[in-house]
Amino acid sequence: MNITTEDLHDIATGAAFLGTGGGGDPYIGRLLALNAIKEFGMPQIVAPDSVADDALVFTIAMLGAPTVLVEKAVCGDDVDLAIERLAQRIGRAPDALVGIEIGGLNSLIPVMAAARLGLPLIDADGMGRAFPEIQMVTYNVRGVSCTPLSVTDDHLTSVIVDTTGAKAAEDLVRITSVHLGCSVIISSYPMTGAQLKDSAVKGTLTLARDIGRAIARGRREGSPIDTLVDFLRTTPYYNQCKVLFDGKIADIQRETKMGFSIGRCHLAALDGSSRTMDISFQNENLVAREGGRTRAIVPDLICLVDRETANPITVEALKYGQRVKVIATSAAPIMRSPESLAVFGPRCFGLEEDFVPLEDIPD
Amino acid sequence: MNITTEDLHDIATGAAFLGTGGGGDPYIGRLLALNAIKEFGMPQIVAPDSVADDALVFTIAMLGAPTVLVEKAVCGDDVDLAIERLAQRIGRAPDALVGIEIGGLNSLIPVMAAARLGLPLIDADGMGRAFPEIQMVTYNVRGVSCTPLSVTDDHLTSVIVDTTGAKAAEDLVRITSVHLGCSVIISSYPMTGAQLKDSAVKGTLTLARDIGRAIARGRREGSPIDTLVDFLRTTPYYNQCKVLFDGKIADIQRETKMGFSIGRCHLAALDGSSRTMDISFQNENLVAREGGRTRAIVPDLICLVDRETANPITVEALKYGQRVKVIATSAAPIMRSPESLAVFGPRCFGLEEDFVPLEDIPD
Repeated sequence: MNITTEDLHDIATGAAFLGTGGGGDPYIGRLLALNAIKEFGMPQIVAPDSVADDALVFTIAMLGAPTVLVEKAVCGDDVDLAIERLAQRIGRAPDALVGIEIGGLNSLIPVMAAARLGLPLIDADGMGRAFPEIQMVTYNVRGVSCTPLSVTDDHLTSVIVDTTGAKAAEDLVRITSVHLGCSVIISSYPMTGAQLKDSAVKGTLTLARDIGRAIARGRREGSPIDTLVDFLRTTPYYNQCKVLFDGKIADIQRETKMGFSIGRCHLAALDGSSRTMDISFQNENLVAREGGRTRAIVPDLICLVDRETANPITVEALKYGQRVKVIATSAAPIMRSPESLAVFGPRCFGLEEDFVPLEDIPD
Repeated sequence: MNITTEDLHDIATGAAFLGTGGGGDPYIGRLLALNAIKEFGMPQIVAPDSVADDALVFTIAMLGAPTVLVEKAVCGDDVDLAIERLAQRIGRAPDALVGIEIGGLNSLIPVMAAARLGLPLIDADGMGRAFPEIQMVTYNVRGVSCTPLSVTDDHLTSVIVDTTGAKAAEDLVRITSVHLGCSVIISSYPMTGAQLKDSAVKGTLTLARDIGRAIARGRREGSPIDTLVDFLRTTPYYNQCKVLFDGKIADIQRETKMGFSIGRCHLAALDGSSRTMDISFQNENLVAREGGRTRAIVPDLICLVDRETANPITVEALKYGQRVKVIATSAAPIMRSPESLAVFGPRCFGLEEDFVPLEDIPD
C-alpha cells in the first residue's frame, strides 16, 4: 500500500470516526505526520501478512486524556526516545512499527514515528477502533505481553516498565502519565511478526483512509452520511451499521479525572419528538441508550458525527447545541470473542450489562 | 575493614541512631543481611579511597514510608533485579555498591545486596544519616545524576527512570512507590569511583558499627547514654553532641501520606518541671523545639533513644508514654555547606527558618 500526503487527511478523518470519540484529535495527528514526512519522507506501509515471522514489531502511541492531548503536543524526540529506550531494554531494534489503536491521533503517531525512524509501518492495529486502557487490545487478548514498555514525555523523561500482567502495567503507566501531565508517548507490546499476524486487526490504516475518502466523496455529492454508511456496509468489520439518532447536544458533562476524559452527553431529537439519547464515555464512547434502552454498546463502535458534514466529533470537542448524528457499527469479529469481551466488554467499564451485538438489538 | 555477623547487630543499632528516626527498622535490616550472608557469605567491605577512579558504583536502598517498611519486607530477587535492570540500562555491571543513607534498614540492605551479588561494599554513604527524599544526598549536591535509576517491588515489577534533575526523579519515583505499596527497592546514582570519592560521606558503616558498640559497652557498664555521648564526641562528624531533653512521650501524631510517615511528637519533662519539647518528622526527625525555641534542626541529627538502654527509636516505633532522651549531634561538614543546605536545609522541608549549627544554639 502506498499512501500520499493527500491520504493523510482521509486517514485522519476516517480514524477519527473509528476512534469513537477517543484516539485523539485528527487535526493534530495530521500536522504531526505531515511535518515528519516533510522532513524524513513518507514511510513504507506494509501489509501485516508480509511481515516476517521473526521480525520485531513495536507499537507506538500517545496515551492520556484527550482533553489534554489537544493542548500538549509531542516534540518528536520523545517518540524517538520511547522506541530507543524499549529497543535498548530488549537488546534489539524493531524491524517495523504498528499502531495500538486507530484514532485521529493514534493512527498518525505511528506514521510520524515510522517516518522519523525510517521503519516500515504495518497496516493494522490492536482493536480497529480506540480504547482508553493499555490492556484493551487484541495483542493482549491473544497473549502478547504489553511489557517491557517505555513511556516518555516532552521533557525527555523516560520510564521503562516491566510488570506481570497488562492491567498492572495500565495502572502503573496511568499514574505515571497523570504525574507527567496526562499526555505521554508510549511504546509497548513488543512482539514478533508471527504474534502480530495472529493478533492484529488487519488493514485498518487502509480502512481509515477509505472511510475518510467516502466522507469526502459524500460531501462533494451532498450526502456525506449516506455515503459513509453505504461504504461502511461494504467493509469486513464495520458492515453492521445503523444511524441511531439525529439530534442536538442538550447537555454535556465531562471531567478530566484519573487520567481520562470521563463523562456523558445527552441528545435531544431534532424531529420534534421527545426522543432522547444518552452516551457515556471514558475517552471513547461506551454505550448509547435511548430512553434508558441500550441501542449500542462496547466493543461495538458508537460515533458522533456532524449531521451536515459527517465530520467525526471527539469527546473533547463535544459542545452544547451541536447537531449530530449517532452512527453505530459492528466491531471486528476478533473484538467480539468471549476472550475479548473479558478484557474490554461492557463490564470492564463498570457497565452492568452484557454485550449484545448491534445487529441483534431491535431498533 | 572486616565485619563479622556479630558486627551486624552493632551496625544496625548504630545506623538506627544515625537514621534519626528514619532509615527503616534495624531488626528487619539485620535479619535480611544475616539471611543473605548465611546463603552467600560475608561481602568484602572496602574503604572509599581504595575504589578505582573508573569503577562503576551503584547505590541500593529501600524507599518508602517507614510505617510500611516494617510490614512489607523485601524478597531478595527484587534487590538483584533493581541492580540488574540498572546495569542493563547503563550497559555495564557495577564494580561495587554503596549505601545512599545510613539507617537501621538502609545501612544493611547494601550488605544484603553485596552478599547476594558477590560485589564489594564501600564503607560510605550519601549523607551520614537518613533523609526522606532521593535528591537529599551529597552525591546530588556534588553533581552526580541520580538517574538512570531502577525501582522494583516484591512482585518483580521494575521501573527504570530517566529524568532531568533529581527532584523530578524524586517526584516520579515517589508516586510510583505509593502505587506499588509505599515500599520499593531503588538502585540509583550510578557513578564512577572518582565521583564517589568526591561526594560520599566516608567511613559511615564503620562509624555505625562503633556507635552500636559504644551503646552495647555502655549497657554492660550501666551508663549507655553517657558512653554513647562520650563516643560521639570522638568521631569526625558527630563530635558536637548534646542531650537536649529527658522526657516521656505525651502525644504522638503520625500519618502515612504522600508516601511518607509525617507527624510530630510532644515530650513532657521527667524532672517535674513544666518543660516540653516538640519534634516534627518526615520519615526522619527534622526539628526539635523546646517551648517554641529551636534546639536542633536539619541537617543536624536529632535522635530519640530509650532513656535506660540508649536503644534508638524510629518514628514508626514511637509510642505514647515512652521514656526517652533526645540526643542531637552535628552532621558531617559536607552536609552543612551552603550547596547542601540548598538541597536539604530546613526550608527544603517547609520549615521557615535557616539552619543554625547545633553548637551555635544556646542551651
